[in-house]
Amino acid sequence: MRDVAIIGAYTTVFGELWEKSLRDTAVEAGVGAIEDANVAGEEIDAMYVGNMSGGKFVGQEHIGALVADYAAGLAREFHIPSTRVEAACASGGLALRQAIMAVSSGFHDVVIAAGAEKMTDIDGTGVTDALAAAADREWEGIMGATFPGLYAMIARYHMHKYGTTSEQLASVAVKNHDNGVHNPIAQFRNKITIDQVLRSSKVADPLRLLDCSPVTDGAAAVVVVPADIAKKYTDTPIYVKASSQASDTISLDDRRDIATLDASVFAGKWAFEMAKLTPKDIDFVEVHDCFTIAEICAIEDLGFFKKGDGGRASYDGDTRIGGKIAVNPSGGLKACGHPVGATGIKQACEAVYQLRGEAGKRQVPNAKYAMTHNVGGSGATCAVHIFSNER
Amino acid sequence: MRDVAIIGAYTTVFGELWEKSLRDTAVEAGVGAIEDANVAGEEIDAMYVGNMSGGKFVGQEHIGALVADYAAGLAREFHIPSTRVEAACASGGLALRQAIMAVSSGFHDVVIAAGAEKMTDIDGTGVTDALAAAADREWEGIMGATFPGLYAMIARYHMHKYGTTSEQLASVAVKNHDNGVHNPIAQFRNKITIDQVLRSSKVADPLRLLDCSPVTDGAAAVVVVPADIAKKYTDTPIYVKASSQASDTISLDDRRDIATLDASVFAGKWAFEMAKLTPKDIDFVEVHDCFTIAEICAIEDLGFFKKGDGGRASYDGDTRIGGKIAVNPSGGLKACGHPVGATGIKQACEAVYQLRGEAGKRQVPNAKYAMTHNVGGSGATCAVHIFSNER
Repeated sequence: MRDVAIIGAYTTVFGELWEKSLRDTAVEAGVGAIEDANVAGEEIDAMYVGNMSGGKFVGQEHIGALVADYAAGLAREFHIPSTRVEAACASGGLALRQAIMAVSSGFHDVVIAAGAEKMTDIDGTGVTDALAAAADREWEGIMGATFPGLYAMIARYHMHKYGTTSEQLASVAVKNHDNGVHNPIAQFRNKITIDQVLRSSKVADPLRLLDCSPVTDGAAAVVVVPADIAKKYTDTPIYVKASSQASDTISLDDRRDIATLDASVFAGKWAFEMAKLTPKDIDFVEVHDCFTIAEICAIEDLGFFKKGDGGRASYDGDTRIGGKIAVNPSGGLKACGHPVGATGIKQACEAVYQLRGEAGKRQVPNAKYAMTHNVGGSGATCAVHIFSNER
Repeated sequence: MRDVAIIGAYTTVFGELWEKSLRDTAVEAGVGAIEDANVAGEEIDAMYVGNMSGGKFVGQEHIGALVADYAAGLAREFHIPSTRVEAACASGGLALRQAIMAVSSGFHDVVIAAGAEKMTDIDGTGVTDALAAAADREWEGIMGATFPGLYAMIARYHMHKYGTTSEQLASVAVKNHDNGVHNPIAQFRNKITIDQVLRSSKVADPLRLLDCSPVTDGAAAVVVVPADIAKKYTDTPIYVKASSQASDTISLDDRRDIATLDASVFAGKWAFEMAKLTPKDIDFVEVHDCFTIAEICAIEDLGFFKKGDGGRASYDGDTRIGGKIAVNPSGGLKACGHPVGATGIKQACEAVYQLRGEAGKRQVPNAKYAMTHNVGGSGATCAVHIFSNER
């Protein structure tokens, strides 16, 4: 199998993009990545698009063909295969993994991995209902469990088992907002305080409004090629060192321990094995902080901190840029926003920007190895990638 | 890249399965294919699941993890990657192609490709709305174009351009019902006459009720392995000779000619090139007859008959078992039913049954090469596969 590199990346501004459709943002991201990569339309062999719920959000399925149709003549002139993949909020990470597999295997040479979601065309109840489709509708949703409700149970159990506090949860949101201030695509570019988080309205106890990532529109795309030809296109290819994906039970009640996401544990373990690296080697990690508790679980389950120590580490600043390991230098899902199908690709874009040294005031100094961690639902799917600016 | 073979196949009964959920049918198919293949749960490396619109049909996304969770411990014990792919009615064909790529590339050895759809839990208006999500919602659906309406425009133009008649369209349905009588999984196992088709109620002129495939629940699965190890599991592996996928514009108005599906033209051409075969070599083809006109376009666009001759060929019996080429010996989407995400895999199952010589009274004599043709939407995506019982 061939080594693989990313030669182009583009993330749209994330936010409530009333003036843009799903198609508009996806095409902006695809064309942006193509231009960043200096590839011509006719060089592109295939596309993968991560999207969670075009059906429920905007009444549109068949997203792969839709995006190919409007980007660089990919469908109407070149008829390239374009495939939507879906695993709830991990849809983007899986699209990236499929693109990497397609190139690594030799099936294709130049492949776009994109992710897009348009969430603000329906009302809040509709969004809550659509997001509940990421969990087990028949065993969780029908009983009234919303998505924040499921993560609230994870948080409550983590607090019970490890003594994690609301202040520690809040410190995750505060740090991610601090980072997001410097990210031009972030939905929220304002600092917040622990006190503000603790005084924000309850969504699902113990999670408050500022513990939750927002509802967001946006898209992102990267261009993947064999490492051997990457320098034909760019002086700064970013190499894929590992790509892994793991599954777990879809409903929480079937887990051995709801404070541990086994999909993260296995995807992380497999990625480190593939890259022949350990957590100590990683300079920064973009983790899936759909809720503050999710970031705490992630940094534990991936092995950056021991189980139960994530809250303490976050509160003590170990996860800040310049700390033990920079976690979510982009601002994460909390500050950037979380257009669910786009997030996994936006994480990869952040890895590219950072490893190129283009991240401005949020730059992680001398970053050599980056990890991205993208979770679907309450942890039934996880995709993990490791990137480096050295081959 | 490695040669690939199918070692197990299973299709649930297709129909209005009131007593079964999406999960029930998908798991039945997955476990059935695993048993048919004689593989153990712990041998399975990955799964791909084709599903068009779990979100709109049953309020459930994240279908990959859902199915893995309930099949042979794949998620909770082995944590294998499980990925949903979607391209409307071609979702199954794309799941199969991803599974083949995963094995051919060496990423995985034993991969399940499944497809499932549960369509009867919502009312007819809901189904029509969900299916319209396969076409261009913003440029077609919002203007009132339903899915039968789009194919009616294709039919009308085909009639205008080539003199195709309603009797010729009807003959496709009659032939497929004749074949479906002998298929134990078919939703409709009754013969119909041309006169009955022509007297059935209009759905979208010139298409009548019996020109249309029905609304159906069902699932199907196959097990894919490297050809080199296939005989470890079965005496009758079915070899994959080609796997291709092409795209076209999502809305009809952007096509150069709406009576030709360029996605079928290119996917077919690429498949024949990959297999080093021509249409004359193929013993039977399962084509995507969501409407009778779709079968006529398919047999032309794939090169079995010249453009404009498909209606004549169908009426004259050239597409019957024993004719020039057997088309839809299973009964096709018309008689078997069309659980959209499952159809592409069910077509592959039919290829397996026929090439093994297990198709009973619908057996195509001495079949050596089979083709399957799975279309998404009104032709924005097409997946084509060629199979053989000889390596």
